[in-house]
Amino acid sequence: MSDSSLTAARRRNLQRVLTPRHVAVIGGGAAAEAARQLDALGFQGQVWPVNPRRTEIAGRACHGSVAELPEAPDAAVVAAPAAQCPCIFAELNRIGAGGGVCFAAHFREDGAADLEAELVEAAGDCVLVGPNSHGILNLLDRVALWPDDHCAEPVEAGAALISQSGNVALNSTFHRRSVPLSHVVSAGNQAQLDIGDFMDALLDDARVHAIGLFIEGLRDVRGFARAARRALERDVPVVALKVGASDHGARATLGHTGSLSGADAAYDALFDRLGVMRVRTPEALLETLKLFTTAERPAGRRLVSLSCSGGEAALAGDLMSGAGLVLPAPSEAAAGELAKTFRIPRGSVGNPLDYNTAIWGDADACADGFAAAMGEGTDIGVHFLDFPRDEACDAANWRAARDGFLRAHRRVGGTAAMIATYAECFPEADRRACVAAGVAPLQGLQPAVTALGHAAAHAEWRRRLLDEAAWTGPLAGAGPRTPPRLVDEGESKRRLAAHGLSVPDGRCVGLGDVGQAAEAVGFPVVLKAVGLAHKTDAGAVALNLQSAEAVRAAADAIADRLAAGDAAPDRWLVETMVPDAVAELIVGVTRDDTVGPVLVVGDGGVFAELIGRTRTLLLPTTEARVREAITGLTTGRRLLGQRGDAGGDLDAAVAACMAVARYVEANADSLAEIDVNPLLVRPPGRGAVAADALIAEAVHA
Amino acid sequence: MSDSSLTAARRRNLQRVLTPRHVAVIGGGAAAEAARQLDALGFQGQVWPVNPRRTEIAGRACHGSVAELPEAPDAAVVAAPAAQCPCIFAELNRIGAGGGVCFAAHFREDGAADLEAELVEAAGDCVLVGPNSHGILNLLDRVALWPDDHCAEPVEAGAALISQSGNVALNSTFHRRSVPLSHVVSAGNQAQLDIGDFMDALLDDARVHAIGLFIEGLRDVRGFARAARRALERDVPVVALKVGASDHGARATLGHTGSLSGADAAYDALFDRLGVMRVRTPEALLETLKLFTTAERPAGRRLVSLSCSGGEAALAGDLMSGAGLVLPAPSEAAAGELAKTFRIPRGSVGNPLDYNTAIWGDADACADGFAAAMGEGTDIGVHFLDFPRDEACDAANWRAARDGFLRAHRRVGGTAAMIATYAECFPEADRRACVAAGVAPLQGLQPAVTALGHAAAHAEWRRRLLDEAAWTGPLAGAGPRTPPRLVDEGESKRRLAAHGLSVPDGRCVGLGDVGQAAEAVGFPVVLKAVGLAHKTDAGAVALNLQSAEAVRAAADAIADRLAAGDAAPDRWLVETMVPDAVAELIVGVTRDDTVGPVLVVGDGGVFAELIGRTRTLLLPTTEARVREAITGLTTGRRLLGQRGDAGGDLDAAVAACMAVARYVEANADSLAEIDVNPLLVRPPGRGAVAADALIAEAVHA
Repeated sequence: MSDSSLTAARRRNLQRVLTPRHVAVIGGGAAAEAARQLDALGFQGQVWPVNPRRTEIAGRACHGSVAELPEAPDAAVVAAPAAQCPCIFAELNRIGAGGGVCFAAHFREDGAADLEAELVEAAGDCVLVGPNSHGILNLLDRVALWPDDHCAEPVEAGAALISQSGNVALNSTFHRRSVPLSHVVSAGNQAQLDIGDFMDALLDDARVHAIGLFIEGLRDVRGFARAARRALERDVPVVALKVGASDHGARATLGHTGSLSGADAAYDALFDRLGVMRVRTPEALLETLKLFTTAERPAGRRLVSLSCSGGEAALAGDLMSGAGLVLPAPSEAAAGELAKTFRIPRGSVGNPLDYNTAIWGDADACADGFAAAMGEGTDIGVHFLDFPRDEACDAANWRAARDGFLRAHRRVGGTAAMIATYAECFPEADRRACVAAGVAPLQGLQPAVTALGHAAAHAEWRRRLLDEAAWTGPLAGAGPRTPPRLVDEGESKRRLAAHGLSVPDGRCVGLGDVGQAAEAVGFPVVLKAVGLAHKTDAGAVALNLQSAEAVRAAADAIADRLAAGDAAPDRWLVETMVPDAVAELIVGVTRDDTVGPVLVVGDGGVFAELIGRTRTLLLPTTEARVREAITGLTTGRRLLGQRGDAGGDLDAAVAACMAVARYVEANADSLAEIDVNPLLVRPPGRGAVAADALIAEAVHA
Repeated sequence: MSDSSLTAARRRNLQRVLTPRHVAVIGGGAAAEAARQLDALGFQGQVWPVNPRRTEIAGRACHGSVAELPEAPDAAVVAAPAAQCPCIFAELNRIGAGGGVCFAAHFREDGAADLEAELVEAAGDCVLVGPNSHGILNLLDRVALWPDDHCAEPVEAGAALISQSGNVALNSTFHRRSVPLSHVVSAGNQAQLDIGDFMDALLDDARVHAIGLFIEGLRDVRGFARAARRALERDVPVVALKVGASDHGARATLGHTGSLSGADAAYDALFDRLGVMRVRTPEALLETLKLFTTAERPAGRRLVSLSCSGGEAALAGDLMSGAGLVLPAPSEAAAGELAKTFRIPRGSVGNPLDYNTAIWGDADACADGFAAAMGEGTDIGVHFLDFPRDEACDAANWRAARDGFLRAHRRVGGTAAMIATYAECFPEADRRACVAAGVAPLQGLQPAVTALGHAAAHAEWRRRLLDEAAWTGPLAGAGPRTPPRLVDEGESKRRLAAHGLSVPDGRCVGLGDVGQAAEAVGFPVVLKAVGLAHKTDAGAVALNLQSAEAVRAAADAIADRLAAGDAAPDRWLVETMVPDAVAELIVGVTRDDTVGPVLVVGDGGVFAELIGRTRTLLLPTTEARVREAITGLTTGRRLLGQRGDAGGDLDAAVAACMAVARYVEANADSLAEIDVNPLLVRPPGRGAVAADALIAEAVHA
């Protein structure tokens, strides 16, 4: 049992809905269609139509109302107009039904949020799928809560697909790709159940070997994180197609960090932290699910590519090396063997291996050659083969090559796939033969390579995630709801320093005391007028001042300039200069609507505007992840040093980020944003100092 | 007539081969297969088998030898063992045959370069396709010079595919994509004819509306450039899938520039300069050819996307904005109209437009709505639709939506496409209906978006290329064949300055004269020991010297250091410092095996190692292209200035690159490489100065 966000009652009820003994179909034409779909799929339980104005639906006597049903149904298909749905769900809840799919639209998505709230309230512990859901298909148990056409077929085990788009869910059933879909869930508006709830329930079924997601946006990210962690623990791979990356404009934010990191980066960070594989197209989604459900899992990234074309071999090499796959050259001994078996020159033997179709007539030679190529301690063997159209020409030769590959796989084991470069050039009979032999029949070169890249990386990624503490969701605290106020630099630094951030030695004083303050901290100093954003732009900063007189003169000059713009700072910050920075970073915190506050590290200094690369990290985070993020930046890489360059104090830079993270954890309720810019990183062993820092927080704090 | 690299005789003969009146099939089983393929395709001309040991082949009497043929055949399929081919081609040439496909392998690709040379010599003016060619299909005239199965079908007009891989050519005929292929040419080893020759010949046929290429490497780049230019002039789009990007390791080179720019960048530059659209997968190749041959050409990038799913709409938006397509929001008036027609809330109307399938039953409303959405001055209208499997469910509703879209397109014109997100979910009958209505039936979301992006950009790209002088191929001169020698810095600068490159005022003197030289050029100065690569690393440079004494002391110190490493420069360069550089660029020249010398501009200074971005330009180039390349760099962008920053002297930076280009043009025979690093760009109006420059050239020069 997981600690689902659902009540225990709803959790039980969701299982009843997924594997019902009886289904009530409530409504008119769509309800009749739902009954027909149950019959077509071969549903073995009871189907009870409910319609007050009909006597018969789909060959069955109608019940006049929910109250007249013989007993509480495990599941219902509610195909009534939106306005009637709250009543129907209240009645289903009253009699103890498991739950229902609400097919009607025109709720929250059309501005009727009140009606949707009423529906949720009415359903109580009765499970509500939708509204605006296309339904649920359970192809393992021949259940179609689905008042519409579809093309899905029963399977014994496979991949469950959960989609926020009904049409994407429907289209996924149209494939001719031998993807064993165990379930298709159209989550609709997710008024009661979120994607994580469905994932969690489906993980209870051992016949679900992978989960695919089509996500427009997550509502309950904690529930999603819990379900994803459980999937990781059970080793059920999760593949997500998240859309909407282009819709999010940059928000106006405090500093650089927020605008540099978009909502899509937050989702990337989320998936990365949860072991969820991200794909970019529906084809890649299905092909990745297919690979995980029809072939053995790869132990690693080493792949052997076989094709009877130098062109395909080069194409495979280009795309595969871009997907993180490694194609090791054959050993001397193996190369000699391969040349002999394939009757090709020794110099032509490589990986990708390009052999000649002349060998296809000899099934034994094919099997021997393929086995020799794949048996050399590699993790994955693939063979490229596009089949001709059976009606246009005789494919016997192609089938001989196919059989040779399947025989070779039986001999050497491991992960194996056949790839048709054109998605449609893999006939169903050939796909079946592959699946029966434990070989994935992949369709379309790019989606196939995407699938192989994900599968090859998954085991290592999973081990790493299981080794670290699970990310349990955003920090508590919603952040400010009203426009936040700025905390001035002196106070911002004081607060962050209390959590371990190094700041320059300094004094915050009135205009008359700046010279004395400078003498106290020691020259050279920096002078700043406090309480102004973008101080440098406003000319409110003076750097590298060498004497008390210089400090006083600079303060007077700044005060005059600001007065001309009607600004009058009453505090001045006098700080020691950091003389030996070797790199500048930007460290910030911004809030994402979905994943909460995130830590963003970015290239600082002159690089910030020119390159603007950032890494986004979910909070809480770990030192290892912060270190990886920093050294992944252009600027951060310099800290590692190279060729006579000692680099910088990477440990201190990591510690500074962790200090900021601690501040966020302690102030999650009130914090809006943080901008540490720049964080000056000094030579190894000498620390990292926040030259500037600003906090924005809720007004009430 | 183009100025093809072929002799006039060969050019005429290639046309005879492409549209033969008679075909000799020479050999045994493969020749018989070639005859069967001619019959199957419905070839109307004469087919003459030649075999000394058979009396009959494919129902026709055999001729004992080429000499015994009734007349000289326009084309021949030579399916004899490699060793016999030179004799056969010599005989074909002697009797005046047009030419032949040489099917045999085991020539140059297997180390038998001599046999291949013998074959070319034997063929003379007789056209030789291959060897190691899978053949030629001319589907316009029902000609199959193709001794093997294929699935291609006759068409009236379409796209010609020329492939260096026989298997890729063969597989392209297997598609179920309604791509009208006019020709499939397997170019084989290209011993006599290169890709450009085939392109040029096919451009003579007005029924060829587009050309697709599968390229492993070009041999005759000038011929290719001429043919591509002719295609551009005739407005026949050329789409190329170039493979092998991952095979090329970085060569050891003089400076930064060569290693930063790989062979793949040279091909990118070549295609960019010739208007050839580059794709990365076979599916994208066919979909792009399909769009160009089945739909009207788009006038621009403005696209309206229609789908009955918010999920698909978001997906479309993500991918399309990444492909350079622009999705303008509907006007107020149109939005109101659309909301009414589609019966959706006004606030839900957008682009991508997500409507509800409820309207599918009403074909008139569908047509009205689609027409209203597409008729608003946009260039391209697309509708997403995956069709269900006919055997699994009734697709009547989907067909109604399809017909609505086709009717709307007839009403408003422009470019239109229907997209199935899964390649296989577009049945043949539906594709035919689309093609008949001038609507491209695109298959697979990613290839479809790639095709649309290319088509949308093509017209503007073509106009721009036609406005500038054609690139006619690499500069004459093969460059040095032996390892080049370095020209010392003083001499390198002198030579480049003679072509207009600005260099610092300086003197090249002996050790004893450095102080005097410094006084002559004016302080501060830079001192360099001349004739050493990577001078800074070797400690052979002293910057910012303020007096003659300092210069002398620095020279002595450097001389001592170099002496310890057994190096002894006899010349010293004393130059003025450039005090006000605002940006540093690297400008270099390197030689590519295919496209000859290329100009590479890159980020300089601290950015060079951290970012390492470069732009590669073919030579000769233009000021406009150099300007675009520079401002495309991180460093170069700074020259444009922004927010109170005046930027730098972009004109001078462009002029410096053009000076280097002129030097290359004047020295193409001897030049190996040039490395100007850094080019110091000063504030606007103040110039750009090559602080360092090195030339590497042939020893004999």
